[in-house]
Amino acid sequence: MIDDVLLAEVLRGGRVESRHAGAAIVTDGQGRIVFSAGDVEHPEFPRSAVKAMLALPLVETGAAERLGLDDAGLALACASHSGEPRHVEIAAAMLQKAGRDASSLECGTHWPTSRAASRALAAACAGPTALHNNCSGKHAGFICLACDQGEDPAGYVDPEHPAMRMVTAALADITGATLDERNRAVDGCSIPTYAIPLHALATGFARLGTGESLAPDRAAAARRLRAAVAADPFLVAGTNRFDTRIMNLFGERVFSKIGAEGIIAASLPGQGLGLAVKCRDGSARGAEAAMAALIARYLDPTGEEQAALHDLANPSLANWNGRIVGETRAALLRQE
Amino acid sequence: MIDDVLLAEVLRGGRVESRHAGAAIVTDGQGRIVFSAGDVEHPEFPRSAVKAMLALPLVETGAAERLGLDDAGLALACASHSGEPRHVEIAAAMLQKAGRDASSLECGTHWPTSRAASRALAAACAGPTALHNNCSGKHAGFICLACDQGEDPAGYVDPEHPAMRMVTAALADITGATLDERNRAVDGCSIPTYAIPLHALATGFARLGTGESLAPDRAAAARRLRAAVAADPFLVAGTNRFDTRIMNLFGERVFSKIGAEGIIAASLPGQGLGLAVKCRDGSARGAEAAMAALIARYLDPTGEEQAALHDLANPSLANWNGRIVGETRAALLRQE
Repeated sequence: MIDDVLLAEVLRGGRVESRHAGAAIVTDGQGRIVFSAGDVEHPEFPRSAVKAMLALPLVETGAAERLGLDDAGLALACASHSGEPRHVEIAAAMLQKAGRDASSLECGTHWPTSRAASRALAAACAGPTALHNNCSGKHAGFICLACDQGEDPAGYVDPEHPAMRMVTAALADITGATLDERNRAVDGCSIPTYAIPLHALATGFARLGTGESLAPDRAAAARRLRAAVAADPFLVAGTNRFDTRIMNLFGERVFSKIGAEGIIAASLPGQGLGLAVKCRDGSARGAEAAMAALIARYLDPTGEEQAALHDLANPSLANWNGRIVGETRAALLRQE
Repeated sequence: MIDDVLLAEVLRGGRVESRHAGAAIVTDGQGRIVFSAGDVEHPEFPRSAVKAMLALPLVETGAAERLGLDDAGLALACASHSGEPRHVEIAAAMLQKAGRDASSLECGTHWPTSRAASRALAAACAGPTALHNNCSGKHAGFICLACDQGEDPAGYVDPEHPAMRMVTAALADITGATLDERNRAVDGCSIPTYAIPLHALATGFARLGTGESLAPDRAAAARRLRAAVAADPFLVAGTNRFDTRIMNLFGERVFSKIGAEGIIAASLPGQGLGLAVKCRDGSARGAEAAMAALIARYLDPTGEEQAALHDLANPSLANWNGRIVGETRAALLRQE
């Protein structure tokens, strides 16, 4: 088994009911380790945590500007959105700017991950389209990139499609990781995902925050994407979601992005740091609690911000009658 | 940290992406250990896994018979149901037999755990009531018990309410565990839940399956409840749920019941065994995969049944385009 550390505990009535273990790391843009716990060299699938990195070619090539994508489109290109109405509208608008529509999306269709949005859709006697897929903004970005580059977007999810090759090259550059068929699998939305060390993921996030080690156009693209997300953090996730809450609190001081199966990464541009957490069992709650604790430690927040982060690191658990019956408690930094 | 063992792995593209650890045990009705892995003496909240045990007083007192509860009502008293229409109708019918209605339920209200049922409710311009709470059948059973015993059901969720005292005494008797304020917390539906060793939980499930060590009326009540669930396993869980699938396959040969936070227990009456698993991180998928593997080992299934259990222990993972991109793989019995 992997050498994991405790990330978070879930308590009920003061007794620990469940536990989340995993690994976590904080590095600078040179990959120098500031904090490390667990096996940070073990390859992990970054899944949707790297969406902003995958969106770099869309901006750095000038495609976004030529097509007239606005901040909202750029934020949605980085999003794992909840399928709420604004998310869906923006994804459709992105495709329209490329002269396309939802039929070009190759992400598959699912009901909105927001249960409230799903119910609202059902109440309107409607069903989901590929626009409701939590990755539709990322996919619309790939289609915009392909169209702008004069490529047929069909098959853009294939690792060998010209647009996906550009995207993969950007990810390899910013993380410094080797990405090839040996560490490749298929993501929920059908694009490739490559298992890379948490160490490389954090280093990439440090660079995403500072531009360090990146070509000037790539560094500028990273800045533009972070600013677009910070301008409207709802777009990158959704109502009550962790990434949205964090960036509503901190704006451009933190760029945080979760992926499926308990992986999450963040940039602290002011500190020049990248943070990454893998919750071994794939739970978001363990990864998020640990990430909030790391941000509290390394961001140097004010007292009020510290309190808000404490609540994100230690959310209380109410039952169906609204009675507080337990809490999640970040454990990561207790162990040092 | 607790001495856990690997229960299941989640693979993507042939590479392990996430892992579930925990503890598991198989015992007979005397508590003799047949199989054990991890710390099976560590207290765990059994949550909804013990609902059939909590329903024993309803049957053994004769309350169910006097009120005219049928098999469906008894099965629903043991259920963590998905809030599908039949579940809701049966909960309402149970309350009616006690001369009560949904306003007597103290479980709280939530949208059906089945997302399809939630959407259907929303599409009908309706909202959830306490009848949709996954515990409404259990609560309706408590109300029936209280009314039959001449008690005011109000406050039945309190540990000191006469009905809840009967329920708690039955749970203490069948598991042999001490249940008091020291190991008590509040469940999602507001009733008490008591942390007990997995060893005691499995022993209780062996007794639930055979009646061993139980008073004759209690043993008969256990038999009656198992038969009611086996007659219509949809009622104890719902569409595509693990417990429903298992009991659709095996009828009275297996009684399986999951609880929140990755706890699951089962009786194999023919073998005289009780099985219990706690997935440390609280995930159902890890607990279910390990339980399917244990059942495959100890039930002595036919070849066809073995194949069905293999699929439950090792479910494949399709992405949003229906492409198989990975699988969950039970790991528990690989480690011996």
